[in-house]
Amino acid sequence: MVSAESRLLELDIRLPQPPHPFGAYVEAVRTGNLLFLTGMLPVEDQTPKYVGRIGKELDEKLGRDAAHTAAINALAVARQHLGSLDKVTRVVRLGIYMATSGDNIDQPQVADGASELFKAVFGVDRMSARLVMGVASLPLGVPIELEVILEVKA
Amino acid sequence: MVSAESRLLELDIRLPQPPHPFGAYVEAVRTGNLLFLTGMLPVEDQTPKYVGRIGKELDEKLGRDAAHTAAINALAVARQHLGSLDKVTRVVRLGIYMATSGDNIDQPQVADGASELFKAVFGVDRMSARLVMGVASLPLGVPIELEVILEVKA
Amino acid sequence: MVSAESRLLELDIRLPQPPHPFGAYVEAVRTGNLLFLTGMLPVEDQTPKYVGRIGKELDEKLGRDAAHTAAINALAVARQHLGSLDKVTRVVRLGIYMATSGDNIDQPQVADGASELFKAVFGVDRMSARLVMGVASLPLGVPIELEVILEVKA
Repeated sequence: MVSAESRLLELDIRLPQPPHPFGAYVEAVRTGNLLFLTGMLPVEDQTPKYVGRIGKELDEKLGRDAAHTAAINALAVARQHLGSLDKVTRVVRLGIYMATSGDNIDQPQVADGASELFKAVFGVDRMSARLVMGVASLPLGVPIELEVILEVKA
Repeated sequence: MVSAESRLLELDIRLPQPPHPFGAYVEAVRTGNLLFLTGMLPVEDQTPKYVGRIGKELDEKLGRDAAHTAAINALAVARQHLGSLDKVTRVVRLGIYMATSGDNIDQPQVADGASELFKAVFGVDRMSARLVMGVASLPLGVPIELEVILEVKA
Repeated sequence: MVSAESRLLELDIRLPQPPHPFGAYVEAVRTGNLLFLTGMLPVEDQTPKYVGRIGKELDEKLGRDAAHTAAINALAVARQHLGSLDKVTRVVRLGIYMATSGDNIDQPQVADGASELFKAVFGVDRMSARLVMGVASLPLGVPIELEVILEVKA
């Protein structure tokens, strides 16, 4: 199995400080071999990097970038919790929720902004199941929220 | 416990070829005794069988049919992954997400298009917990997406 | 670890009768050490206590109250299933779905109506991961639905 930490170095990706909670919750909960992350947003330094709905204020390209940014935050939270991303044995499920207004956007294409980062880091053998949908609005007005469940080493 | 494969025969349901991914993910991921499916859509031969929002372009009856079609795809994916549906010991959770535009439709009634198929196949002892909600839009413009978590034999 | 049942007494919270299913599903499913609840709504005696969208027919304060009411129902379902809330070792994930119309409401603040009740009952050491989003509509026209996954004693 490829080392996720080595892959990050090869891809020249440096993970930021992980986000902090905006309320009475934590960023990650482990139960057994599963790690559930809080909904990851495209924020930097606790501030939204993208604001608006995809297909309205933002185009699909920006939506895809936002999905990538949220996925980077997911990696940062997972590493902080686990010590190393090499403890991730599988990405179990990735949910990609995008703020739209019923517009006919290419949702799978936007979602791949997150999925392809995970594939690059964890490899094809750890690719996830996936849920994709357009919702009415997201916290802080961001265009993307990620649901992430990881399988981790015992 | 009733045999799900026998029930399918009795109900005269033949499962189609399971859908293929539209991006960097897989259709099902097993972790421990849980099988997480990708969001199941009402597609046939990789093409949407229903397009539109429930309460707008489609009425509740068609929404219910779409939920049934998506549930058939879920069974096809689960069988492909497990070899036999008789390995399913419980439907843990069924999420039924329906594209609406804030309209006041009978969501539980539409959702039962999927739940009742699962009940017919797996029996009342394996009935799931359920999440039902109306969302802004779904991939490919379909009216229904299903989230499915199954408990399977060790 | 604080006793959740003792905390309820101290907080003077009496749990109502748990809600009944509106279709072919059950209110809770246990698999291994996880308990998945059905989407919890702000109902009392099977009737919606709040109807409308937050930021439209209802303000944020009422949305927060609705989240609290739905969380009370979650506790009632969990106690019925487990016999005692003292069997809950962790709130794994809390999803707070709110009916909006794309409005810019303070979603984390509304969501805390549920999260803070759980924190008061289970303590900071059992705080959950969290998903928050605005959706188009919810069953029965209610403003809030909760997704709940609990970790319970073996």
